[in-house]
Amino acid sequence: MAKKGSLLSFRPDIKVVDATIRDGGLVNDFRFTDEFVKELYRANAAAGIDYMEFGYKASKDIFDENAFGEWKFCEEDSIRRIVGDNDTDMKIAVMADVGRCNYKRDIINKADSAIDLIRVATYINTIPAALKIVEYCHNLGYETTVNIMAISNARETEISEALEMIGNSPADGIYIVDSYGALYMEEIEVLTEKYLETAEKFGKYVGIHAHNNQQLSFANTITALTHGVSYLDATVCGMGRGAGNCASEQLLGFLKNPKYDIIPLLKFMEKQMELIKEQGVEWGYNIPYLLTGQTNRHPRSAISATKEKRTDYLNFYLELNDKD
Amino acid sequence: MAKKGSLLSFRPDIKVVDATIRDGGLVNDFRFTDEFVKELYRANAAAGIDYMEFGYKASKDIFDENAFGEWKFCEEDSIRRIVGDNDTDMKIAVMADVGRCNYKRDIINKADSAIDLIRVATYINTIPAALKIVEYCHNLGYETTVNIMAISNARETEISEALEMIGNSPADGIYIVDSYGALYMEEIEVLTEKYLETAEKFGKYVGIHAHNNQQLSFANTITALTHGVSYLDATVCGMGRGAGNCASEQLLGFLKNPKYDIIPLLKFMEKQMELIKEQGVEWGYNIPYLLTGQTNRHPRSAISATKEKRTDYLNFYLELNDKD
Repeated sequence: MAKKGSLLSFRPDIKVVDATIRDGGLVNDFRFTDEFVKELYRANAAAGIDYMEFGYKASKDIFDENAFGEWKFCEEDSIRRIVGDNDTDMKIAVMADVGRCNYKRDIINKADSAIDLIRVATYINTIPAALKIVEYCHNLGYETTVNIMAISNARETEISEALEMIGNSPADGIYIVDSYGALYMEEIEVLTEKYLETAEKFGKYVGIHAHNNQQLSFANTITALTHGVSYLDATVCGMGRGAGNCASEQLLGFLKNPKYDIIPLLKFMEKQMELIKEQGVEWGYNIPYLLTGQTNRHPRSAISATKEKRTDYLNFYLELNDKD
Repeated sequence: MAKKGSLLSFRPDIKVVDATIRDGGLVNDFRFTDEFVKELYRANAAAGIDYMEFGYKASKDIFDENAFGEWKFCEEDSIRRIVGDNDTDMKIAVMADVGRCNYKRDIINKADSAIDLIRVATYINTIPAALKIVEYCHNLGYETTVNIMAISNARETEISEALEMIGNSPADGIYIVDSYGALYMEEIEVLTEKYLETAEKFGKYVGIHAHNNQQLSFANTITALTHGVSYLDATVCGMGRGAGNCASEQLLGFLKNPKYDIIPLLKFMEKQMELIKEQGVEWGYNIPYLLTGQTNRHPRSAISATKEKRTDYLNFYLELNDKD
């Protein structure tokens, strides 16, 4: 399949989306200090990052607000405290999870909000519910994407139908999400082709959100990019659930657009990321994550194994293959 | 460029070469216990690994034998103590470094040796010296490969000339070696095509040895494989210099030939690899390695930074760009 761009040139349609607070929040219950979030905001803006995702728009009717830091809920006041009127070139994103948000109550008119982009996370069987949120947010004036999670478990015919439905919606972008870190680059190429075919027909863009279970999150992200995907998710030091994500510092070293600058991120990392690791917050590749990735399973058993510091890899592998 | 094979089938020309003792020896001065080497030998044989590399054939005139474990020198007696008459399907390999071995003295007739394959490591400017060793070893009855190191620093015209020279030699295989972990998959595709063109003309195979500086060693290995490379280097837990290598457990999870079995490796890892990590032996991806990989530098400055536990990433990056 045809490649877009080359190793020395750059494509202006490429956008980098920092998801450190949102996906990283899944490993520390969204308990970031204000200093961390403010410094990340400044570092991202200086590094040329195009969007910064602040967290989830989760409903407080569903989640106990004492059990999580405020970025689980991303209230307008929280974001404003960090970004003020956001006088940077960077846009602000949040994620709304199908079935876990009260969007009609919690999402206000774009004109009154610091948020630019609402990313709707959905499994393939809840696309109609996702499109309800997309329509609502689009009508309020937001950019929107549909992020189809756990795509390694979906069938081709389902994906085709889902893409056609999203194509006919007002969503601006469609995301390939490899929640289980199970996909190989060859599969990413096939999905990219499939997503792009629909996206181009309907004038939308395609994004990718990769997980690092098999140490392929960076490889899969640049493979998707090479074949035409334009929105690229990354997190500082790959901070994110389980094995984590494509790291911003990997991606910025690859991208050739001179607007991107790795230096503000290196400065941020040596202070704030070292602090957060000292607090014992853990993520990143290990053998249990590799094994759930290889076998295309949800990482939950590997998350438990990591917490318990299990090194009985063979038993873990046998349990994994026994479970279903 | 055309792909060979598919994700569900397997190519019988694929061979997995375990380089744990040889490349891993670079991080512990080749000081492995006999138990480690014996259990690795058994695990590899049971896992279907095709070749196990035991270490270097280094000259004791050049290297102090008290400063290293015995696998730096791979004497016949050392190997025999582990493998006896090697009544497995797995072949035995060693590496001979141009300028660091006394091959005429130290390499005996194949008929009297436990070794099957001698891999000659060379920089591109010492190919003629490498081919002298290849001819000598070939005439003694060994399989041979030429492993051109640091290929990310070589020019296309040099590579073409080197390949033609190797093509006309009795070497059985030619290796792509990304010593600096600097190459992206697109570059691996181009090199694969280039190497294969010559290799196929002369009836030789192509191999790949990748480093994990940018977390691309597994990605680059399967990209090379997908495009026709057949000899794949891997090490258990990626143990190897600096950021390490493609991990055997990653690769065996990808390969579809039913002769490969990850289980013996998982058992080996949970005992012997955990022990070696407890001893404080260190390798694997970190930010300094990422930065030397991105900038296509020898990892030596990152190795020092790792030893010193430096986290002043920005200074490290500035030093890296200042140095030459």
